[in-house]
Amino acid sequence: MRVARFSHQGRIGFGIVDEDALVELSGDPILGLWDTTGNRIPLGEAKLLAPVIPRSKVVAVGRNYAKHAAELGNDVPTQPLVFLKPNTSVIGPGDAIVLPPESESVHFEGEVALVIGSVARRLTPDNALSAVFGVTVANDVTARDLQRAEGQWVRAKGFDTFCPLGPAIETEPDWDALRVITRVDGEVRQDGVSSDWVFDVPTVLTWITAAMTLLPGDVVLMGTPEGVGPLEPGQTVEVEVPGVGTLRSPVVAHA
Amino acid sequence: MRVARFSHQGRIGFGIVDEDALVELSGDPILGLWDTTGNRIPLGEAKLLAPVIPRSKVVAVGRNYAKHAAELGNDVPTQPLVFLKPNTSVIGPGDAIVLPPESESVHFEGEVALVIGSVARRLTPDNALSAVFGVTVANDVTARDLQRAEGQWVRAKGFDTFCPLGPAIETEPDWDALRVITRVDGEVRQDGVSSDWVFDVPTVLTWITAAMTLLPGDVVLMGTPEGVGPLEPGQTVEVEVPGVGTLRSPVVAHA
Repeated sequence: MRVARFSHQGRIGFGIVDEDALVELSGDPILGLWDTTGNRIPLGEAKLLAPVIPRSKVVAVGRNYAKHAAELGNDVPTQPLVFLKPNTSVIGPGDAIVLPPESESVHFEGEVALVIGSVARRLTPDNALSAVFGVTVANDVTARDLQRAEGQWVRAKGFDTFCPLGPAIETEPDWDALRVITRVDGEVRQDGVSSDWVFDVPTVLTWITAAMTLLPGDVVLMGTPEGVGPLEPGQTVEVEVPGVGTLRSPVVAHA
Repeated sequence: MRVARFSHQGRIGFGIVDEDALVELSGDPILGLWDTTGNRIPLGEAKLLAPVIPRSKVVAVGRNYAKHAAELGNDVPTQPLVFLKPNTSVIGPGDAIVLPPESESVHFEGEVALVIGSVARRLTPDNALSAVFGVTVANDVTARDLQRAEGQWVRAKGFDTFCPLGPAIETEPDWDALRVITRVDGEVRQDGVSSDWVFDVPTVLTWITAAMTLLPGDVVLMGTPEGVGPLEPGQTVEVEVPGVGTLRSPVVAHA
């Protein structure tokens, strides 16, 4: 199923996407506590929100496609390279990416995102997938000039609006064929498949949870394929994971 | 006043420290919503907890004392060097720091911690202090070998139990004379004063909030003075900020 979070007539809730409508849920499906309310809300009447605001963190994996590592002049890592994006960087589908005055080169990075569904600590490759609630779409927006200039990537990756998420979470993804396509004003700029990941989901989750506990609603970004590039005000960037959804973000300059 | 969070008879709440008792509060003082309940709980009967679990993030400033930068062979930064610790690394006073099998050199770093009291975005040096609810004590525990080996400090700084906080928040600190003293098994190892900070609180908060919004309950660590060193199982490390409190943590090996 595909689960979305939405606002409708001043109310915020979760729903299952069923053709052109949302089947409203009564609880939080990420916590496993939910039922259907009987309401059916036309998709055109609801505003979709980020399907989750992580209560703790977005953990991201860098250089997880060999050709993307190469395009920025980096080696392919020998262990997962993880960094954090704060939950204050998360925005929803349709929300604007704001280019801050502190950077002159803000890049898109289309990615597959995992939404965690349980309290996960020291997972093993055998049980790691059971901690995943589902897959959504992300844009790991990055101030490339700051990333190059600063040892730690916290500012470069952590500005407000630098983590669009959504539009929905697919709970039964085809792990072997997750494709991510990024378009800027309709032109394809990135196109990668999960079979090209340097580290797969069980390896990444085992690695992260050896250090830090993941909580339900935390998000893990699986890295970006080759083709990253700058965004300009007035453009629209969209990241599509076929079978999951298309995440569209207009780009604006800071006021 | 000094505010602590505690559990007592199965209940979790906030209280004002008044000599040897906690004056119980009815709400969340960090959100500015509280009153006294009339209950007075002897300090010896309550278990003090981390005074806050950040709803979003712990932002830390690296190399903010010149002599500490030098002791690890680093230059003094020309702009604040910020990194993130996940809220899952936070533990309370008396809780154990667990040494993970992934590291052979886990260091203490005693620090002054700011607790944010409002939604803070693009602060200025003139208004930055108004976003601070108060000051508490932190230990920015760090796997030094992983920090040296890995470009990003997320694992090195982010293990569960690597951010002891507490025991209380002082809401009227003397900004010009905040001293932090670290002892291991009673022996003084670090002793630094806020007048030695490379970047002061207004500068740090202006810098951070130009990138990311801080939320009430977020925590900012102001860096550690010289004298960092390794911890061994069986030791007790304590960080004291006179006038604020002493944060004591036993050290244990991973089970």
